[in-house]
Amino acid sequence: MSPFLAEIIGTMILIILGDGVVAGVLLRKSKAENSGWIVITVGWGLAVAMAAYAVGSFSGAHLNPALTIALAAIGKFPWADVPSYILAQFIGAFLGAVVVWLHYLPHWKETEDQGAKLGIFCTGPGIRDTFGNLLSEIIGTFVLVLGILAIGANKFADGINPFIVGLLIVAIGVSLGGTTGYAINPARDLGPRIAHAVLPIAGKGSSDWGYAWIPVVGPVIGGILGALFYKAFFLA
Amino acid sequence: MSPFLAEIIGTMILIILGDGVVAGVLLRKSKAENSGWIVITVGWGLAVAMAAYAVGSFSGAHLNPALTIALAAIGKFPWADVPSYILAQFIGAFLGAVVVWLHYLPHWKETEDQGAKLGIFCTGPGIRDTFGNLLSEIIGTFVLVLGILAIGANKFADGINPFIVGLLIVAIGVSLGGTTGYAINPARDLGPRIAHAVLPIAGKGSSDWGYAWIPVVGPVIGGILGALFYKAFFLA
Amino acid sequence: MSPFLAEIIGTMILIILGDGVVAGVLLRKSKAENSGWIVITVGWGLAVAMAAYAVGSFSGAHLNPALTIALAAIGKFPWADVPSYILAQFIGAFLGAVVVWLHYLPHWKETEDQGAKLGIFCTGPGIRDTFGNLLSEIIGTFVLVLGILAIGANKFADGINPFIVGLLIVAIGVSLGGTTGYAINPARDLGPRIAHAVLPIAGKGSSDWGYAWIPVVGPVIGGILGALFYKAFFLA
Amino acid sequence: MSPFLAEIIGTMILIILGDGVVAGVLLRKSKAENSGWIVITVGWGLAVAMAAYAVGSFSGAHLNPALTIALAAIGKFPWADVPSYILAQFIGAFLGAVVVWLHYLPHWKETEDQGAKLGIFCTGPGIRDTFGNLLSEIIGTFVLVLGILAIGANKFADGINPFIVGLLIVAIGVSLGGTTGYAINPARDLGPRIAHAVLPIAGKGSSDWGYAWIPVVGPVIGGILGALFYKAFFLA
Repeated sequence: MSPFLAEIIGTMILIILGDGVVAGVLLRKSKAENSGWIVITVGWGLAVAMAAYAVGSFSGAHLNPALTIALAAIGKFPWADVPSYILAQFIGAFLGAVVVWLHYLPHWKETEDQGAKLGIFCTGPGIRDTFGNLLSEIIGTFVLVLGILAIGANKFADGINPFIVGLLIVAIGVSLGGTTGYAINPARDLGPRIAHAVLPIAGKGSSDWGYAWIPVVGPVIGGILGALFYKAFFLA
Repeated sequence: MSPFLAEIIGTMILIILGDGVVAGVLLRKSKAENSGWIVITVGWGLAVAMAAYAVGSFSGAHLNPALTIALAAIGKFPWADVPSYILAQFIGAFLGAVVVWLHYLPHWKETEDQGAKLGIFCTGPGIRDTFGNLLSEIIGTFVLVLGILAIGANKFADGINPFIVGLLIVAIGVSLGGTTGYAINPARDLGPRIAHAVLPIAGKGSSDWGYAWIPVVGPVIGGILGALFYKAFFLA
Repeated sequence: MSPFLAEIIGTMILIILGDGVVAGVLLRKSKAENSGWIVITVGWGLAVAMAAYAVGSFSGAHLNPALTIALAAIGKFPWADVPSYILAQFIGAFLGAVVVWLHYLPHWKETEDQGAKLGIFCTGPGIRDTFGNLLSEIIGTFVLVLGILAIGANKFADGINPFIVGLLIVAIGVSLGGTTGYAINPARDLGPRIAHAVLPIAGKGSSDWGYAWIPVVGPVIGGILGALFYKAFFLA
Repeated sequence: MSPFLAEIIGTMILIILGDGVVAGVLLRKSKAENSGWIVITVGWGLAVAMAAYAVGSFSGAHLNPALTIALAAIGKFPWADVPSYILAQFIGAFLGAVVVWLHYLPHWKETEDQGAKLGIFCTGPGIRDTFGNLLSEIIGTFVLVLGILAIGANKFADGINPFIVGLLIVAIGVSLGGTTGYAINPARDLGPRIAHAVLPIAGKGSSDWGYAWIPVVGPVIGGILGALFYKAFFLA
């Protein structure tokens, strides 16, 4: 499998399981309805771990433009491959969102809350505050990229690394996710937001485009800063 | 131990722990009563992991006709052994359901909700919708079989693989289980449904045979599709 | 460290963390108050895992007379060492309960519910039913001993086994614990029950001696049956 | 990276994720609001594990003056390095608390409860009782240091040890944390308490200096006792 295809499939798995868990918790008449933040954060952590197990050997399982750009920024990934990785990640994220829509097909019309339906596809802030929200996405992605690099510098027994990275995602979710819903990944947020805009979801509302730049710009800035911090202190 | 006996015992452990956790959460006067979706999904994940640790070295721990058929469909398991594996899985699932009934013996008559009592043995949809429910079981089992095959392609430290497969079950449960209760396994659903029909469960209601074909047909289709997808993209 | 001392210290750690988590959930004005079954079951699973990490290399970390007797019954542990192991397990369980009492010292007088206070030290059934309760302890301990033996037959990467056994405890807790509170260990139940009887716990009630034989006899029967089942099928 | 810098960065990560999870659960309009004790205890466990993965190879990832002093007390760490480690831990804890304040910036003024806001930075008892609270911190840190030493005496597959230590933190949290909020670490408590006192947190109240000595003195006593117990019984 080519890295391009692997990033598509990996990001698709990420979004099927990640947006899927939010759908399970928020949609009416789902058996997971109202099962809370622990379910959502564990679900996203497992989504990353499972996607990494599936395609890690083919593409490195970036699954995140902010990580791809950050790795390139410190010379750990070739800039020439960045555009195709990012394109693949957006394609995979969009397709994953389509699968989630199909999987929960009878539940959309039973759910009145338009904000909940949007929240399945993409993030939105607990308190709308441009500076605070942007800062929050920067800090979250800083911890993500620094964590992935620092964890990866350990020697691991075979097959353990993706599990530990999944725990890092759970950690970021429970500890830093409460503010903006921890996009920490432009493809994870914008890809499904586009899907929300174009799919015929029963009773959907606005796709909240006014907020859409924050979970793109914040993660890119935070990821680069995290990688530079790693290079400055951990590799020195 | 023969693979036939191993599949019986393994599927029995799967259902004792899997149906057991649903019983704990749904039956009246259980100490686990109303402890929620996180308990159910963790319980099923551990049920698969523990069954795989117990019998994996004897039979490969399929524990699921959809997996057995899917593996045969891509040449990873001999078709000649498929019938005996499936028979063993149904026997084990039925016996496991009998044990759960005995384990919670004083609780059945204390529980009025007939739907809850059926839900301990087999799945039912949050919203009854033939196409949606079938699609949901297809997608869930697609992810299950693709995940097992893709995870299994990694090199693992001794004894880690069943734990990671258990996490895959938790992931599918939290992310995709809210619609139909994620049978994703014909034996897991039909075996205990037969037990529900024949056991003298205090105050039981219908076994909902009208729905029973969906968690049989859906997983078989989804499993084959998942295996074909794996063969087409991951082995190419 | 001698195996005798190791079993004392190991069982003490087991009960400090195990009875401790029940105290945290049930005692008034605890920060963990009402945090539910997932906390209790995870707490007991971690209690076993941590105790096994601490003393496993010294005594094998039985921590449970039912396991010690079961292992002896199939020739995997010398009968001559059984009495000293059991004595050590009871001493450790009693001492662990004393530490829990001290740790939560200001909370006992704030908690009116005498049943809750007893429930921190030892188990009681959700529905009082001698046959059902005994059967439940037999089944739970059958799964425990069969699981420990079957899991232990796998080859594990260094340091993984106690973690997986901890997961087995979580599995038994969530799936089979709702009926009687899963003593599955005579020392875990009777040791702290004696402590409850003799300690000057503020506002304590009955130690429920009428029930006390069930979590002793049930686990011994279940453990022996589990070991015999293992020998008959898994070693054949 | 020098051990001094590693302890700063490691303790900073510990507090960003640890105080972060409390902020997520307690602050108004956080998506993690009221998600409960399981989220807080898992969050702190992951915080320790992630910090240990990040800096363990540089400094041993003490991240806790009570552990540093305890290791020195039994000759496993040079006394000459104790002051610089402790200084680094306090600097890191202070800086981590600053990051948490920034991360949740719009949420402070939305939260009226001054006790909740303080509780994000440092611990306070469920029941104010000097002897009981001190004893509780002593017992908690005794288990922490004994556990770290006993766990560390096992041979582990590469990269597993920090995960298991994270589970020990979860175990202490769920089982022993309900009394005082388990500081079990002077830097974790006093560093962020100083941050609470000096930062311009919207609508903050008292920093509760009357209690501040307990989570400093208790952990130091408990840690030394745990290390001495380990030396006396586990190394004999």
